[in-house]
Amino acid sequence: MAGPVQSIERAAAILRLLAGGPRRLGLGEVAASLGLAKGTAHGILRTLQHVDFVEQDAATGKYQLGAALLHLGTSYLDVNELRSRSLNWADALAARSGEAVRLGTPLEGSVLVVHHVFRPDDTFQTLDVGSLLPLHASSLGKVLLAYGTASVDPAQGQGQGLESYTRHTLVDPERLARALAEVREVGWAAEIQEMSMGEAGIGAPIRGHGGLVVGAIGVSGPVERICDSQGHPRPSLITLLREAARAISRDLGAARW
Amino acid sequence: MAGPVQSIERAAAILRLLAGGPRRLGLGEVAASLGLAKGTAHGILRTLQHVDFVEQDAATGKYQLGAALLHLGTSYLDVNELRSRSLNWADALAARSGEAVRLGTPLEGSVLVVHHVFRPDDTFQTLDVGSLLPLHASSLGKVLLAYGTASVDPAQGQGQGLESYTRHTLVDPERLARALAEVREVGWAAEIQEMSMGEAGIGAPIRGHGGLVVGAIGVSGPVERICDSQGHPRPSLITLLREAARAISRDLGAARW
Repeated sequence: MAGPVQSIERAAAILRLLAGGPRRLGLGEVAASLGLAKGTAHGILRTLQHVDFVEQDAATGKYQLGAALLHLGTSYLDVNELRSRSLNWADALAARSGEAVRLGTPLEGSVLVVHHVFRPDDTFQTLDVGSLLPLHASSLGKVLLAYGTASVDPAQGQGQGLESYTRHTLVDPERLARALAEVREVGWAAEIQEMSMGEAGIGAPIRGHGGLVVGAIGVSGPVERICDSQGHPRPSLITLLREAARAISRDLGAARW
Repeated sequence: MAGPVQSIERAAAILRLLAGGPRRLGLGEVAASLGLAKGTAHGILRTLQHVDFVEQDAATGKYQLGAALLHLGTSYLDVNELRSRSLNWADALAARSGEAVRLGTPLEGSVLVVHHVFRPDDTFQTLDVGSLLPLHASSLGKVLLAYGTASVDPAQGQGQGLESYTRHTLVDPERLARALAEVREVGWAAEIQEMSMGEAGIGAPIRGHGGLVVGAIGVSGPVERICDSQGHPRPSLITLLREAARAISRDLGAARW
């Protein structure tokens, strides 16, 4: 059996590097960040440039992500079954709840947003598709963690610690573990001002063939709209969300549960 | 100077293959399409799977594009200066013209849509960002061809021929060349029912540093809205479009022209 191809792994690492942080890097910065010799990094960058995965700024000589990735990324969306099976249900959920709806799938220790329906009002909203949410501080992420579909980066769980976004973020591994056990018990997750003060969300699991959790769907918005006067998520919203999650799961081939 | 890295080129070819056509392919199909030994293709696919650029369907064993590409694709959009400098102007152009606005940049013998503002009404529209338009049958593509920013795939120009989408598509190289000369003369391009009957669009060049054309912006919609009763693009729309293109070009550092 063939082992992994080192140059492809390095190329992927360079692309990930360019997708994070400053996003325009010189050859020396790329080589140093990944512990590569400059000649090695240069050969990979030139090849990535040749296939339009990387562009080089003519003025500064710095590298940035290339246009071919956008086409590949939207082609991924076209073929993503979780997303295609969810489109109508997500629209209906946004219309019925009056709130924004997001769909997430695990990617590299985060939640990747694969679909986003705007809150059905005329407020300014930006499309979140393709962005990453933290597992421990989003309702979608808590669902994926609770059902073992994603796991927290071991480095975060220990030394580095979970990032604290607000004073409500669950950064203590024991408290997080208790919260996840509760998610499994009730079948849905809440995130109340844990990523951003004033914002809250609830999420529910989407199951595929065999009942495995393959993704999560969530409703989010201002905390006073998601939660009642006691600060608990509104039961009516939870019902709408869980009905949508069940409908999508059935479309994906999960047995009723 | 290092040459291109063959395994990375092959990995890119596999991703492009999965982005086109049926989008779910078995190992044998991938190997045969690219003329690779099965073992070689398998090693590359396994590595691409390891870095989340490819996913393998558990039931069928077929390969499809992976989630990491979506995040890289949207990260490309975040860093794309043509797009970021155009956002406000594109919104204003859509509002003033009452039509849909698209921004394009060349990619592999096509136009890659990097921004899309919906026509400001309540009709159903789907987001075109990340999709590819043909160079010879779109107003954006004609602009890129006319100014040498993109060129038609040599195979299309000769034996294979340019694809005919409607009876108005310019498939004859000489007629296309004359149309492109006219684009250079007047400074904008029109596409009238050349890709889809009933639809039309106009496009104008966006210039960057040094005056080079780096992209195109266009307005499109039903032919009776884009064109007047004589079948010519409405002068008022052309003025709005060219003003937006000039404003973006200035923001990108092009001298006034």
